[in-house]
Amino acid sequence: MRKLVIHELLYSSLAQHGQVEVLSGPHRLTYQSVWERAVRVADRLTRLGIRPGTVVGVMDVNSHRYLELQYALSMVGAVIHTLNFRLAADDLLYTITHAQDEWLFVWEGFAGSLGKLRDHFPNWVWLTDADHDHDRDRDRTYEALVAEGRLVVPDHANRVAENDPYSIFYTTGTTGRPKGLRYTQRDMLLAPLQIAHHLALHPTGAKLSSADTIMPLIPFFHIHAWGAAFFPPYMGARLVLPERAPAKEQLELIAREGVTWSNMVPTQLHMLLDEAEAAGQALPLKVLTGGSQLPSGLAQRAVKNGVEFSLIYGGSDQLATSISVIARGMDPSPSSPDTLQVLSTRTRPIPFVDVEVRDENGQSVPQDGQAIGELWVRSPWLPDGYLHDEESSRAVYVGGWFRTGDLAIRFPDGSLYVVDRQKDAVKSGGEWIPTGVLEAVLSEHPAVAAVSVLAQPDDKWGERPVAVIQARTPVSAVDLREFVEGAVASGRIPSFWAPDRFLFVDSLPITSTGKIHKAALREKLDLR
Amino acid sequence: MRKLVIHELLYSSLAQHGQVEVLSGPHRLTYQSVWERAVRVADRLTRLGIRPGTVVGVMDVNSHRYLELQYALSMVGAVIHTLNFRLAADDLLYTITHAQDEWLFVWEGFAGSLGKLRDHFPNWVWLTDADHDHDRDRDRTYEALVAEGRLVVPDHANRVAENDPYSIFYTTGTTGRPKGLRYTQRDMLLAPLQIAHHLALHPTGAKLSSADTIMPLIPFFHIHAWGAAFFPPYMGARLVLPERAPAKEQLELIAREGVTWSNMVPTQLHMLLDEAEAAGQALPLKVLTGGSQLPSGLAQRAVKNGVEFSLIYGGSDQLATSISVIARGMDPSPSSPDTLQVLSTRTRPIPFVDVEVRDENGQSVPQDGQAIGELWVRSPWLPDGYLHDEESSRAVYVGGWFRTGDLAIRFPDGSLYVVDRQKDAVKSGGEWIPTGVLEAVLSEHPAVAAVSVLAQPDDKWGERPVAVIQARTPVSAVDLREFVEGAVASGRIPSFWAPDRFLFVDSLPITSTGKIHKAALREKLDLR
Repeated sequence: MRKLVIHELLYSSLAQHGQVEVLSGPHRLTYQSVWERAVRVADRLTRLGIRPGTVVGVMDVNSHRYLELQYALSMVGAVIHTLNFRLAADDLLYTITHAQDEWLFVWEGFAGSLGKLRDHFPNWVWLTDADHDHDRDRDRTYEALVAEGRLVVPDHANRVAENDPYSIFYTTGTTGRPKGLRYTQRDMLLAPLQIAHHLALHPTGAKLSSADTIMPLIPFFHIHAWGAAFFPPYMGARLVLPERAPAKEQLELIAREGVTWSNMVPTQLHMLLDEAEAAGQALPLKVLTGGSQLPSGLAQRAVKNGVEFSLIYGGSDQLATSISVIARGMDPSPSSPDTLQVLSTRTRPIPFVDVEVRDENGQSVPQDGQAIGELWVRSPWLPDGYLHDEESSRAVYVGGWFRTGDLAIRFPDGSLYVVDRQKDAVKSGGEWIPTGVLEAVLSEHPAVAAVSVLAQPDDKWGERPVAVIQARTPVSAVDLREFVEGAVASGRIPSFWAPDRFLFVDSLPITSTGKIHKAALREKLDLR
Repeated sequence: MRKLVIHELLYSSLAQHGQVEVLSGPHRLTYQSVWERAVRVADRLTRLGIRPGTVVGVMDVNSHRYLELQYALSMVGAVIHTLNFRLAADDLLYTITHAQDEWLFVWEGFAGSLGKLRDHFPNWVWLTDADHDHDRDRDRTYEALVAEGRLVVPDHANRVAENDPYSIFYTTGTTGRPKGLRYTQRDMLLAPLQIAHHLALHPTGAKLSSADTIMPLIPFFHIHAWGAAFFPPYMGARLVLPERAPAKEQLELIAREGVTWSNMVPTQLHMLLDEAEAAGQALPLKVLTGGSQLPSGLAQRAVKNGVEFSLIYGGSDQLATSISVIARGMDPSPSSPDTLQVLSTRTRPIPFVDVEVRDENGQSVPQDGQAIGELWVRSPWLPDGYLHDEESSRAVYVGGWFRTGDLAIRFPDGSLYVVDRQKDAVKSGGEWIPTGVLEAVLSEHPAVAAVSVLAQPDDKWGERPVAVIQARTPVSAVDLREFVEGAVASGRIPSFWAPDRFLFVDSLPITSTGKIHKAALREKLDLR
């Protein structure tokens, strides 16, 4: 009986898609050769003592070796800890210790930034094109493992169970230590496949088909590139792995390799559009984006350059939850303002995901496109809780539901507008003011390069919004206030949402995942 | 935690697709009202004593009531036995007894053909628009159950497990008694969804999208209409249930309700095309077909009339296995002869299904597009075996594989051409001659209305093929022999496949599922 486990996914794709290309830097492989290299590595690791349940940390850019490891470790029943290389060294070491990593696989490009980490880990493998490095000759290299491994699937591969743990990764909160999540084989397989299915079944910008060539720009450490380590072979789509390519090289890869589909956070989309515009080049690409609010100015600019996109909502502690869709009867043209507005703000739960928007008493708020509440999520792939952290788990994993900590609005058609992190939102006179929506409005002003709205304590209202602006060209608070009043006049936002103050900064602090670091900003501005 | 069980599938579709229409005869419902009626029936049945594990037989055409029952019985943990109303009365009673049905739900349209069946079953519910029938006032009606039921999901619904049994149905063999299959909740959900996913992800004729309006012409008793009881609400596609509509009314429904997608066996496609041609009407329909060989003449005629199709291979004892796909690089136009030929003969295993073509010693035959062997299948949704029949089970469910009893050819690209039932094929001089392929060739002769090729014992070769022809217009054996020689000359078939004899009959006997009844034909012709 076949099982829903990660390495079976790749194996079952070989008969039909084995000869489909996988590109990675200078390397041209196929799913067949990726499988065979993964089998050799798995064989070698078994003989080196890796056991079912051994936790293995991997720190790499999106390369074929990383792809192979995600399947090889599944075969031996090991648990892959995908290391977030954007974490501060301190937090990185914390996650390695906390997850109890016994082995580390590290890309040589990170060698300079690892400090004393190397000394703490006897079981260390360098990810490098070299099969031997004279400066590091006491260390193993990945290519040596491949060379030493036999093309024999480890015995354990057939005993891996759907509910065995498969991967560990950490949330990147802006306060406190990262929190760990551990997912089973089945859950880490189902959620990504449901993303692919949803994008294939429904009319939407980032529509997916086996004819696509996929280049994941979301790093593998972030939920396995939002699942893009798994669904391309399942579909038989060509895969282009960008390794460390910066935006300019990404653009070249897209053109040279005929990439048709990618995923990325809005910041990456922004950079890619900058490069495309500078090169005077269209960007006929289907893009799945999310991770932070998609500014409407950026959405318009993307469509103008040929991008068709969908928005995804989810996260490390809930996996995939919802994706934007062009509803029946809506103008399918991405340049239609209504369609653009819906695609860039409103998502629809993917099949088997249940969502509710609830008030502070746990009661559902009206599904009227106006009421704001906290988003609760229930799905077949929710984890039991945070790793080794019962207290945090009990606070947010409640009776089969996950309290997302996000504020959302539910529409009569079942769609969902996630407006803000609850802790970032402003509570004014007992009502929520979602800073994300205000930021979207302000980002449309031509002089605004970036914007963050924060809460300032207020004697009368409890809190009031303050807009912090990074300007592209000179602009005054008066100009911006007028601009916001325009949005009020057109009915887009209520008048009490208008920020009380506008502050100007040279640049906004950014987190390791490219979002604006509100906690740092709040501290810096000393808003009290 | 959400589970992969049947009633959760409908429930989880409501938030977004609750208002999507479900049409059934004169009734216009929505998925929301289907759900609510199913809940009421489930509530009432619980109070009438239906328990988890109770087997409930249902005999109905494709109606909204049948749809509702497939979800209602899931909620109470009962097992639905989908009765094949085309079985001989004798075999039907056998299956009811063998499956240990405790309740029967029967459409009033079958009242005249049930013989003494009614007297044997105290727990009897009529499926009828009436909520009370004076002639049958001792019996319950379905609408009375709906009226008496509360809108309260039974407690047990949350306790239904993925591996609980969900449905029972019987194979319709041409020899011996029907054999029973029992599938779990999870398997009966996964296989249909994988059909939908495959049809959405890959370029193919019967491409599926949430924008489609689906009319299942495969009866629900046949693997829940090949899964079409389940994937339409999951996708949010409109559903048109044809009830007892004959081909002419089906055609009217397609035009009036904007049906874009349907499933049917080749015989049904033939009848629908007859009606469309008689009405001088195009048939712009996406069709999933299978269950028997698709004659190439019928495939050509379908495309000429506007039909785009895909072929599915599977069956009651293996569920969905493979579906035809337009491969990368192939001309996507359905009127291209190469594309048409591939779409109508060669299927590709759907994800997670593994197939092998093996010789009599269990060794894989070369994957060269020529070698013929028996098709073995492995998938996540195979049953353990036949119901209460260990001997038959042991013969075909072997070490996690299902021996299909079908002969197939594997191509280098992984695709599969199922050429014949092994027991129907002719073994000549130690080599297989697939009768299905010969039948396809002969069906292209303009004078041939239908054809069946049988084995005749032969002293020298063991067996030799005999073609039995139902002619449309007068034709001679000499004409047909010449026609076959043309196929040999063009390299389509080897010369030793050419039938030794051509026999002519007025009509060919048909099985309950619309296939030619070879056993009956063999007996009638007394081929010895």
